[in-house]
Amino acid sequence: MTHIYNFSAGPAVLPKEVLTQAAAEMLDWHGSGMSVMEMSHRGPEFISIYKAAERDLRELLAVPDNYKILFMQGGGLSQNALIPLNLVGHKPQPATIDFIHTGSWSGKSIKEAGKYAKVNIAAVGKTAVPPLAEWQLTPDAAYLHLCTNETIDGVEFAFDNGVPAGLAGLPEDVLLVADMSSHILSRPIDVSKFGLIFAGAQKNIGPAGVTIVIVRDDLLGKALTICPSAFDFKLVAENESMYNTPPTYGIYIAGLVFQWLKAQGGVAAMEQRAIAKAELLYAALDADDFYQTRVEQHNRSRMNVPFYLKDESKNEAFLAGAKARGLLQLKGHKSVGGMRASIYNAMPIEGVQALVDYLNEFAGR
Amino acid sequence: MTHIYNFSAGPAVLPKEVLTQAAAEMLDWHGSGMSVMEMSHRGPEFISIYKAAERDLRELLAVPDNYKILFMQGGGLSQNALIPLNLVGHKPQPATIDFIHTGSWSGKSIKEAGKYAKVNIAAVGKTAVPPLAEWQLTPDAAYLHLCTNETIDGVEFAFDNGVPAGLAGLPEDVLLVADMSSHILSRPIDVSKFGLIFAGAQKNIGPAGVTIVIVRDDLLGKALTICPSAFDFKLVAENESMYNTPPTYGIYIAGLVFQWLKAQGGVAAMEQRAIAKAELLYAALDADDFYQTRVEQHNRSRMNVPFYLKDESKNEAFLAGAKARGLLQLKGHKSVGGMRASIYNAMPIEGVQALVDYLNEFAGR
Repeated sequence: MTHIYNFSAGPAVLPKEVLTQAAAEMLDWHGSGMSVMEMSHRGPEFISIYKAAERDLRELLAVPDNYKILFMQGGGLSQNALIPLNLVGHKPQPATIDFIHTGSWSGKSIKEAGKYAKVNIAAVGKTAVPPLAEWQLTPDAAYLHLCTNETIDGVEFAFDNGVPAGLAGLPEDVLLVADMSSHILSRPIDVSKFGLIFAGAQKNIGPAGVTIVIVRDDLLGKALTICPSAFDFKLVAENESMYNTPPTYGIYIAGLVFQWLKAQGGVAAMEQRAIAKAELLYAALDADDFYQTRVEQHNRSRMNVPFYLKDESKNEAFLAGAKARGLLQLKGHKSVGGMRASIYNAMPIEGVQALVDYLNEFAGR
Repeated sequence: MTHIYNFSAGPAVLPKEVLTQAAAEMLDWHGSGMSVMEMSHRGPEFISIYKAAERDLRELLAVPDNYKILFMQGGGLSQNALIPLNLVGHKPQPATIDFIHTGSWSGKSIKEAGKYAKVNIAAVGKTAVPPLAEWQLTPDAAYLHLCTNETIDGVEFAFDNGVPAGLAGLPEDVLLVADMSSHILSRPIDVSKFGLIFAGAQKNIGPAGVTIVIVRDDLLGKALTICPSAFDFKLVAENESMYNTPPTYGIYIAGLVFQWLKAQGGVAAMEQRAIAKAELLYAALDADDFYQTRVEQHNRSRMNVPFYLKDESKNEAFLAGAKARGLLQLKGHKSVGGMRASIYNAMPIEGVQALVDYLNEFAGR
């Protein structure tokens, strides 16, 4: 087997233990004679898999009882439409949605929301989260949307006690909606401070094709009539994610990842590892000016680390050398160029060390 | 390993060869050092998997060049909203959609379409497809929706040269939209006679979480503005199903199923097997009045075979005896009761024979 480290931004590296177990169970799950892929979603075998996954995720994130966890299809991108379709109905129409624009993903959310609501960009900051004092919030907005980790740009909100830092002055009636796709499960969060949290699975959860929505139950039941029934959060919640056939195999793999996370010590342990990995990597990037980063120190992402060679004419040589060492998927997103190393939960520190060794070698240190 | 035959209506039995290959490749696809689940959807490895799946499906169904094949998320159920959202814009608003109501699934499609268009139930037939002479079509309707195989009720359109039989008198300008979820790839079809064909994967294609849409390219580009971008067929088509991150692993498994189908002789061979399996099973059900079926002979589904015990007090005993013999998932859908045997492409004739043996034994023959 080729030994590689996969720095893809998503779909991304998964724990070897999870893949090994999935391979072993592929043809016969727990003596059932069936693959998980072959199971009716209504049968006792899959129901047990589903309930364990839901319970473990609830435990890992300490999700309060008055929040529903939905396992949906459509990807994080679809939520840019589905969240307005489900939430703006709580306010008189047309409602306004406030956004903090910190990079490409909040930008996509802003663009899509404009189909269903008035959009107010309350603050913009592409290299750091702007301070609360600069936010121009709309009175009585339907909600305030944050992308708490920008996968492409590498801007991550600093957190304090499980909520974005510096929000002490935020009016209590502001409903927080957070896109946590690329850093969920990498740090403790205080779910009770959010109205809704969503995340595509393909970074820290499991395979592409599963989207997690964690939503406070009083927010259900106000979907606009134009919302497709399959994506009405209330119907999905009432049917325990089985209003339509759920992505069963993806939920199974996510469940194995949740078990793995628990065995590793949960999100508190993941946070410690994430800090160690990020510090190691940023230290190598900061050592001199051979490499450059653009995000301000206090908002540097622990998950997605974009960087640039000062001499961009060396980009191809850098990537070729990396590939030769089994360090894969380091090319930055086409919209921003440069390089990007995504170092999610399943990336071992040995992978980061191998990248750091190469960074130093390539820089001639 | 427990030996069973799985008659689930979906998710459903998959070819053993496919699962065996998936297990073997789980940790290292073709020497890449990565699981398919870990691959960037933009990388050359996954792109090659995607292109092979698309090409093989195009070959299996002889899809003409002027049709796009989309691999989407959301399930067949979501298409009940997404198809109106994408297609009614070709007519002045509000447009009308015609439906032939032949069972539960066309019923769901009718209900959902009412959110986006005027709905005309052109004909109703729950035990047989009503003849064309009885259809009350709307002049200038956006399209005519057929569910060509009703998974729950077991009503399947008879086909003639790859199109629903008896439609010779249908006006040429009627745009046909077909829900083929539960019998796609079980018989040759003439795609060119349809505007759009869709199918959830979890019957004859692969795992739940992938939805196939085959759409004529002149029908793209008229999505209503309220259609979520992630589900705008034009955007999905232009981006080769990668406008958002596609359900990569499900597409990979579907691709393996397509390879398996080709190795078995394609859909013509599948049709011969389906005929043999269905004849074997219906003959046992028809042998005397111990079992009953409700669908008229010429519209009996080859894929989903609902049946009833004349003495329904024996239902539990029947199911318990079946389970003891490893004949699983025979309970009928809760909305119609009784029993149902789904005998998709991946169900070997040995499984049908085992069921027939049990049917005879239980009936005391």
